[in-house]
Amino acid sequence: MESFFTFLERRVDDSSSLLCVGLDPHVSDLSTSSRHGLSEPTAEAALDFCVNIVKQTAPYAAAFKPNAAFFEQFGAEGWDALKQVVAAVAAESARRGSMIPVILDAKRGDIASTAEAYAKSAFETLGTHCVTLSPYLGKDSIDPFIANHEKGVFLLCKTSNPGAGDLQDLTVESGQLKVPLYIHVAMLAQQWNAKNNIGLVVGATQLDALARVRLAAPRLWFLAPGVGTQGGDLEAALKAGLRKDGKGMLIPVSRGISRAESPAKAAAELRDQIMYIQYGLKK
Amino acid sequence: MESFFTFLERRVDDSSSLLCVGLDPHVSDLSTSSRHGLSEPTAEAALDFCVNIVKQTAPYAAAFKPNAAFFEQFGAEGWDALKQVVAAVAAESARRGSMIPVILDAKRGDIASTAEAYAKSAFETLGTHCVTLSPYLGKDSIDPFIANHEKGVFLLCKTSNPGAGDLQDLTVESGQLKVPLYIHVAMLAQQWNAKNNIGLVVGATQLDALARVRLAAPRLWFLAPGVGTQGGDLEAALKAGLRKDGKGMLIPVSRGISRAESPAKAAAELRDQIMYIQYGLKK
Repeated sequence: MESFFTFLERRVDDSSSLLCVGLDPHVSDLSTSSRHGLSEPTAEAALDFCVNIVKQTAPYAAAFKPNAAFFEQFGAEGWDALKQVVAAVAAESARRGSMIPVILDAKRGDIASTAEAYAKSAFETLGTHCVTLSPYLGKDSIDPFIANHEKGVFLLCKTSNPGAGDLQDLTVESGQLKVPLYIHVAMLAQQWNAKNNIGLVVGATQLDALARVRLAAPRLWFLAPGVGTQGGDLEAALKAGLRKDGKGMLIPVSRGISRAESPAKAAAELRDQIMYIQYGLKK
Repeated sequence: MESFFTFLERRVDDSSSLLCVGLDPHVSDLSTSSRHGLSEPTAEAALDFCVNIVKQTAPYAAAFKPNAAFFEQFGAEGWDALKQVVAAVAAESARRGSMIPVILDAKRGDIASTAEAYAKSAFETLGTHCVTLSPYLGKDSIDPFIANHEKGVFLLCKTSNPGAGDLQDLTVESGQLKVPLYIHVAMLAQQWNAKNNIGLVVGATQLDALARVRLAAPRLWFLAPGVGTQGGDLEAALKAGLRKDGKGMLIPVSRGISRAESPAKAAAELRDQIMYIQYGLKK
């Protein structure tokens, strides 16, 4: 069987897409989209919301990215909905004859038997293919998630929130080098990626940082949030972060799709827009 | 209403205890402890396992610490069991007339509306009082968890796993200082702790580091794992990490209690052992 990123790249080819469709059932979206009128948002409404996006956008999605928090807030019912969302992606993949990876955006990070339990939760219980992780606890906290090369991780590297500088931008002594902590993380990830199943989360809004991470980790895939709601410039981000082969970046978009009048149309347009930039074509 | 650490200190006084009883339903423990014979471990068995520990050890527990991963691996049923475990602590607290804090060991770390959803999950949906978090994303990733001073967090600072050095021990430039990253995190936490609801996770096995973190954060509470299974020396750890007032450290123990012939007796003995050291008394 193939490694996670070989699997992802096959899907990228099948769909001609670098678009990662976020499945973030915000409570505020459910209040208006729920079939249940003005009642409290429910896990069932979250499920309906996500399945609708999956069905509408599957042709244009290189991957789907459900965000664990928005399900977790509904408790057990939310976890049940999350499992059903993952199953809906698998069903849609089967119907279309091209398997679409599911990246669980969970940002977990723990050690030993606890990390093993989180890996079991993500990959076996839920059936996702990849999970986002924090690097703060080091290599052995990552190991249980990368033991099977078919399953992958994206490690938090450089994010675009106001507090990112509190740790990530600190200058650290990395061997003989002095580099920002996020560059040290990128170098570690590149070095740990023996099975082609480690990628990095790198915000799309800070172009200098994105270009630097690309230099530090020339072969890794990036999950690059920040285009759309957070105001990132898609073209500049792709130019700073794409690998030489024109791949290596997934562009996650959530509200830009889910809140569009037609999620299908919004996803198709984003997919095409990325592709034009990727191949250096005029629209 | 009081801040989280004022609440915790009241319970510490009520129970004369710094013992934090871990609720970690390892699958391997459930296989033998399940009422259901040799069948696969279930979320129901995890619930039974934890409720038994809660009932047996409540008199000696300064706090309980369920580990989210061991519930999450059972999916929706696991989250239902986790909620019932939290409710069992509340019921036992009410019966005994002294509220026992529940620290959700979840090591979450995300930003903006996602962090808000995790805070809602931990504090509202589950009803816990405190949660462990990763500091990698910076202050704004912590804010939703500390907005209400009655709820608290323990930030990962210095852990005792083999990979801890990959990031935590790096020398960083923190203003004019050059310090290990974990000391920078401790100083940030001390500085952010305006509402008396931020503590630190500091492994009990590395005594030098523990003493250094105490110097960097003289007033903060530590959650200090590593005594017991991981082989930490209880007396040396307490001497290195306790505050001048003889408080400021919670000692989490999981398997040392859950795998004892009598969890009640094991917890009572640990509580007493800590107290003797804390007050400088002979056994």
